[in-house]
Amino acid sequence: MGDATPLTENLLLVYHEELPSETIEYITNKFPEAYIKIIQTLSAGIDHIVSNPIFKDTKIPVTTSSGIHGPHIAEWTVLNWLVASKKYIKIYEAQQKHQWTGVRPFLNGIHDQVGKKIGILGYGSIGRQIARVASALGMSVHAYTASPRPTPASRRDNGFIVPGTGDPDGTIPASWHHGHDKKALHSFLSIGLDHLVISLPLTPETTHILGAEEFSILSASAPGKNRGYKPYVTNISRGKVIDQDALIAALKSGELSGAALDVADPEPLPPDSPLWDAPNVQISPHISGLGVEYVARVFDIVQINLNRLKRGEPLINEYKRGKAY
Amino acid sequence: MGDATPLTENLLLVYHEELPSETIEYITNKFPEAYIKIIQTLSAGIDHIVSNPIFKDTKIPVTTSSGIHGPHIAEWTVLNWLVASKKYIKIYEAQQKHQWTGVRPFLNGIHDQVGKKIGILGYGSIGRQIARVASALGMSVHAYTASPRPTPASRRDNGFIVPGTGDPDGTIPASWHHGHDKKALHSFLSIGLDHLVISLPLTPETTHILGAEEFSILSASAPGKNRGYKPYVTNISRGKVIDQDALIAALKSGELSGAALDVADPEPLPPDSPLWDAPNVQISPHISGLGVEYVARVFDIVQINLNRLKRGEPLINEYKRGKAY
Repeated sequence: MGDATPLTENLLLVYHEELPSETIEYITNKFPEAYIKIIQTLSAGIDHIVSNPIFKDTKIPVTTSSGIHGPHIAEWTVLNWLVASKKYIKIYEAQQKHQWTGVRPFLNGIHDQVGKKIGILGYGSIGRQIARVASALGMSVHAYTASPRPTPASRRDNGFIVPGTGDPDGTIPASWHHGHDKKALHSFLSIGLDHLVISLPLTPETTHILGAEEFSILSASAPGKNRGYKPYVTNISRGKVIDQDALIAALKSGELSGAALDVADPEPLPPDSPLWDAPNVQISPHISGLGVEYVARVFDIVQINLNRLKRGEPLINEYKRGKAY
Repeated sequence: MGDATPLTENLLLVYHEELPSETIEYITNKFPEAYIKIIQTLSAGIDHIVSNPIFKDTKIPVTTSSGIHGPHIAEWTVLNWLVASKKYIKIYEAQQKHQWTGVRPFLNGIHDQVGKKIGILGYGSIGRQIARVASALGMSVHAYTASPRPTPASRRDNGFIVPGTGDPDGTIPASWHHGHDKKALHSFLSIGLDHLVISLPLTPETTHILGAEEFSILSASAPGKNRGYKPYVTNISRGKVIDQDALIAALKSGELSGAALDVADPEPLPPDSPLWDAPNVQISPHISGLGVEYVARVFDIVQINLNRLKRGEPLINEYKRGKAY
């Protein structure tokens, strides 16, 4: 972590753990004459540096790693959907036992994703890459954002995008929805969704934004409810956006067919939490964005911003001090 | 199964097991006045009826279910890639033990699919849907077909396509390759592939088309070989297209990083086969195409062909007697 002395002519890395030596070497090779007047975070958020004097007391631009998580988190999301829908654990266990089961255990209850409706709460870079893959699988995508996106310009993704991924122009969604209040959210949850993906930032307004009432509304309008599949919830945001007890209840009652959770409330999730054994829940320990490509992509952003600085252009992924996330 | 009496004014279903009563009911409701002069198979192939007199001794058109397997098999394929690349079993086992491991076990060795090169042997309806999803994940697709496909018309998929899926116009591949002989195949395997997907029909020529030499060539040109990932092989065709002993050896030697196999040689795979425990192999019992949507899609084909018959148009998915598969 940086200390109280603002840096001016150096590259400052902010990370919550000691960096591996290969990473340091990578950076040193990539930027032999570091002179950047930028603070680049290795995370999409900046909550870990907001109380630091270099953030509070200087005007050094802070740029985030927003946009680099899309591919990894979209893969994590699709992985979890398919593990659930294809009964993967049954396949895995049969292999462990050297059992060629044949088709019988798999004749019932396996649905594919074609024609399924997916609602994405928070259509940022992560939601957009999930949308891209969902669309390729044959699903229809429905986006929900805080502010209205009526024009092509308003639908664009202006941050960093991993080349060849995402939905830069916002052309994938079959419908766009927006709002800040329960009414707007409930209206969105009523459009008949098979999948709900939560990729919102955690703020006071989004804390427990999904609870018993929301799961009930979602379930009641699910198109597949009479065909053997209820809505499936994916949370790649923060644990506290969901009322976790309400989620467990909705899984137990069958209102939801399952949930993929990369986040929990609290983290680490204690061993005795009832969430671990809730029906059809798949939990991972906040790792959906991890991958070897992570650091290299952060420095793709640094490289872009170095070039922009030289040309006097506005930076990408710059955090605007004094504005809510 | 049909017997030796050719049917003329009826709908004949050919299936290797007794149909569930719901399926019979579904069909009866969908076609209350069945009068079709078509034999519709419930499989993509016709090998189970070629020795039947209704096939040999009549000219009743035989239409296959080719084209309906794309979505399910593409999902199965991507599921297996991601189970391997994301270390899913480690995630699953931690949940079973109620362990919030944090990020440490997942910091190394996890790659995403962005920029990976996938080669697809046999660019039919299944290969095309795999291509569609692979492209959405950020991969570049390279197609290999028996005959050359130099023109837009030759690249088109003229069979049944599940709406919203596949690559109907053949526009996804970054490069097209073709040939019948080892030389052409070896040239394709040398272009630097991270993934090889086998979706060829089994014929005398494709039997053991992939063996020790081919895995060696594939491995030698793999772009990721110095970055921690060797080629990954996916077989959704038939077990015998691969020399299985050679595959096991290539997995053991590390020439291949892993394999996803929905087929084996023989089937059922005996419990004492060394394939079960080969390194990084994922085996399923020939189920990749299964799903509840299967039968409904077969009858989408019947419906299309009923309409074509009425209009005097050529049928889709018609098997041409006397022509090799």
